[in-house]
Amino acid sequence: MSTPKPPGSSDKTTLKRLSYKASGSTSDLYDILDLNMVAHVGFVIDGAPMVIPMAYGRSGDKIYLHGSSGSRLMRHLDSQPQVCISITELNALKVSRSTFNSGMHYRSVVIFGKAELVAEDQKMQALDIVSDALIPGRVAEARPMTKKEAAATIIVSVDLNETSVKIATNEVDDPEEDMNRGFWAGIIPLASVAQPAVPADEESAGLPVPQSVRDFIAKRSR
Amino acid sequence: MSTPKPPGSSDKTTLKRLSYKASGSTSDLYDILDLNMVAHVGFVIDGAPMVIPMAYGRSGDKIYLHGSSGSRLMRHLDSQPQVCISITELNALKVSRSTFNSGMHYRSVVIFGKAELVAEDQKMQALDIVSDALIPGRVAEARPMTKKEAAATIIVSVDLNETSVKIATNEVDDPEEDMNRGFWAGIIPLASVAQPAVPADEESAGLPVPQSVRDFIAKRSR
Repeated sequence: MSTPKPPGSSDKTTLKRLSYKASGSTSDLYDILDLNMVAHVGFVIDGAPMVIPMAYGRSGDKIYLHGSSGSRLMRHLDSQPQVCISITELNALKVSRSTFNSGMHYRSVVIFGKAELVAEDQKMQALDIVSDALIPGRVAEARPMTKKEAAATIIVSVDLNETSVKIATNEVDDPEEDMNRGFWAGIIPLASVAQPAVPADEESAGLPVPQSVRDFIAKRSR
Repeated sequence: MSTPKPPGSSDKTTLKRLSYKASGSTSDLYDILDLNMVAHVGFVIDGAPMVIPMAYGRSGDKIYLHGSSGSRLMRHLDSQPQVCISITELNALKVSRSTFNSGMHYRSVVIFGKAELVAEDQKMQALDIVSDALIPGRVAEARPMTKKEAAATIIVSVDLNETSVKIATNEVDDPEEDMNRGFWAGIIPLASVAQPAVPADEESAGLPVPQSVRDFIAKRSR
């Protein structure tokens, strides 16, 4: 596994504004990718932009995206010279005394790269990466994937060597002239929370909730 | 205010697969747009796709996106023949007995359209739409916007007449051969939850939390 270039290391990913929000840390990059679950994947189709939400998983310095082999969009993905993948985590609303100074606390990753089709003989491993990225430990507990299922899936990888990481946690900083006029300011924290698992049927209700599911929920409960 | 075409009414937005997930309801479209807060906006820059997260607000059959007039990307937006705006709400993980049959419950909107620069004389109204879309009632409580602040902001609108709405809430439906082999299946509900507001400073700590902020938190608390 090679070490990716630090986020923000190319011309395209150098932030032109608000550079105090840029992070050059690979651990920030990995942490944002590993905690979140939906990527917005952008590509060009007939000259026009298209953005679709997809599940993803990271392993080392690659991100994997999967879809059905029946999907026109999935088949289109690896024919693109470049895709742009955007992952955003909203953590709070910053409510300033003016709407102008209000904003959001967020962490975001934008990845630029070429989507490479994963070869048949590496497909099952790559699909397992995505499943275990969503719910760590899940693959070992589930019914193993069949070759027919792998064949029905397209999976692509994108290298993490051109990325932009932004972290916005700036506190309210209202100008002097807005102070002491009776306007309130503060932060509304937001969290993505998992609730207790709901068994699908009688068989599942009679089984213990699997460890991977319990760990996932524990990590995201408040 | 004109009535938008129902979602999914154009060729481009007709879903080629999993059509049971498509919604043709304008109230679904509006509900998803009004509840969520971050849009992933895709456009083409030098022939390559770019996807950036942005705050947005809906009013009638238009969506508004705003940014700083110092932002290169914002200045680029209205010169595009088309943009693609994707908004996704993740509501649960569907954990089936196999990873192949697992998936997500989500609601998603994809909007195709031309970004139109909002004229100077309508800018303040449009900016207020975005602020009130995020936290309804906020504009009336905040320090009013100045002309200088409006001048420092770019805001564009996109018509909601070419949209695709997908709602995935399909329950676990494992094949017979996966049953009664000891594998668990179920749903992990996910929610975006607001926590109690944190006043920014002593002045704010001495003031009541504004009604708009209390309403926002109450609507998103569990």
